[in-house]
Amino acid sequence: MGSFTFIGLGLNDEKGMTVEGLEEARHSDIAFAEFYTNIMPNLDIGRLESMIGKKIHIVDRTQVENEGGSRLLEASQAGRVAFLVPGDPMIATTHVSLRLSLSKIGIKTRIVHAASIMSAICGATGLQSYKFGKTVTVPYEEPLPKSVLDTISDNHDRGLHTLLLLDVKSGQDIQLTIWDAAARIMRADPKMQSVLAVGAARVGALDEKMKASKMRTLANEDFGGPPQSIVVVGKLHFVETEALRILWGAQDSDLRDSI
Amino acid sequence: MGSFTFIGLGLNDEKGMTVEGLEEARHSDIAFAEFYTNIMPNLDIGRLESMIGKKIHIVDRTQVENEGGSRLLEASQAGRVAFLVPGDPMIATTHVSLRLSLSKIGIKTRIVHAASIMSAICGATGLQSYKFGKTVTVPYEEPLPKSVLDTISDNHDRGLHTLLLLDVKSGQDIQLTIWDAAARIMRADPKMQSVLAVGAARVGALDEKMKASKMRTLANEDFGGPPQSIVVVGKLHFVETEALRILWGAQDSDLRDSI
Repeated sequence: MGSFTFIGLGLNDEKGMTVEGLEEARHSDIAFAEFYTNIMPNLDIGRLESMIGKKIHIVDRTQVENEGGSRLLEASQAGRVAFLVPGDPMIATTHVSLRLSLSKIGIKTRIVHAASIMSAICGATGLQSYKFGKTVTVPYEEPLPKSVLDTISDNHDRGLHTLLLLDVKSGQDIQLTIWDAAARIMRADPKMQSVLAVGAARVGALDEKMKASKMRTLANEDFGGPPQSIVVVGKLHFVETEALRILWGAQDSDLRDSI
Repeated sequence: MGSFTFIGLGLNDEKGMTVEGLEEARHSDIAFAEFYTNIMPNLDIGRLESMIGKKIHIVDRTQVENEGGSRLLEASQAGRVAFLVPGDPMIATTHVSLRLSLSKIGIKTRIVHAASIMSAICGATGLQSYKFGKTVTVPYEEPLPKSVLDTISDNHDRGLHTLLLLDVKSGQDIQLTIWDAAARIMRADPKMQSVLAVGAARVGALDEKMKASKMRTLANEDFGGPPQSIVVVGKLHFVETEALRILWGAQDSDLRDSI
């Protein structure tokens, strides 16, 4: 009987995997990876294959979900499977379903955690982790679903920050940009133009770009390539204000008259 | 002029560092570490020193905060500093202040992110990341601060889960246990006895222990050593219910009559 380990790839490239994840992938009999729950444009599959010393079989959403992950399930009955996943595995609900399918047929599963934007955004921006409310994704679909503005205002009313994840077009390796998401949000509610927000691109990478400003300014800013996300800022503690000023260029006018 | 890199050590031991973090620590001129914002009982300093090929200077809260981090600031003016921090660095506010002090004197700072309980708890439990509300810490002090119960009920009213971080006694390497925290919460509000919760100990480690049950059951359960945390469960999606049943032993009676 085999085993199945979900291994997080972290934030940017193949070096975002932990030392433990690397060892586990090296010891596996077969390695799979998916890049449909998140995109990692700086990750080089060839380099990753050399690091773990074996070929990596890339699976798409259909293979994991619609076919019930049968290929993964079969492999896990035969040996030790490593499944490489962007960010921290299991943040994506789809992988919880896969884990349950594996458990039901008696396969031992385990997660080797890695960095996720869900927690990295706190330190990266300098905003305090216990002041973040519910997270929400800005989808490609228009008009913007009511849940996006509701989540922002519900958090904001309580003085909390909101992490906005930006939708990924599965299989096409593209993601909604900060400027596009900001524009959609302002179209849905013009009052959002003057809210203080932080645009965060490629968090943790050497070419990370972050900027704290009014939403309308972020809508006109080029943040370069993915991955990107936005934080709508709630009530600020003075250390948070300092961080947005000193590290991410917030101006006095940005800090005034926010919604 | 030097540089200063905050490197996350991840969740359990020295192998929770990323491959990038390991390389950065190896290339540094001097390495510091702190274990007062979180405890990592399975981490072996000797092994960590061999991995990064240099001595690690352990600093305490006083050295980082009360003395304004002067030793760290001085070292960063002379060369390339690696500062090793449990979990994902900067989740602790104290390190944001240090980063700002470094920026003010012109030192280039960077974060190499790692896994944090803030995001790992989602995948580990099988609960969906976008259904977590604000996080709160259960402190050693009694009576329990009003903010703990307020945060739980405020999230619960919205159908959201609440991650309860458990206080760490700085310098003593001990942490509030799940059973102790559960008992404190039930003393403060007896209605909390019947709430559905997940006790999570040593998330991601080989000896990880998790159990989903009523709070009163968790208060009588031995979860072993730290690190530990609790999730108070909100409204469940059916995949989440399945995960709590199949993976973490929730019984029908646990899933009924929750607050």
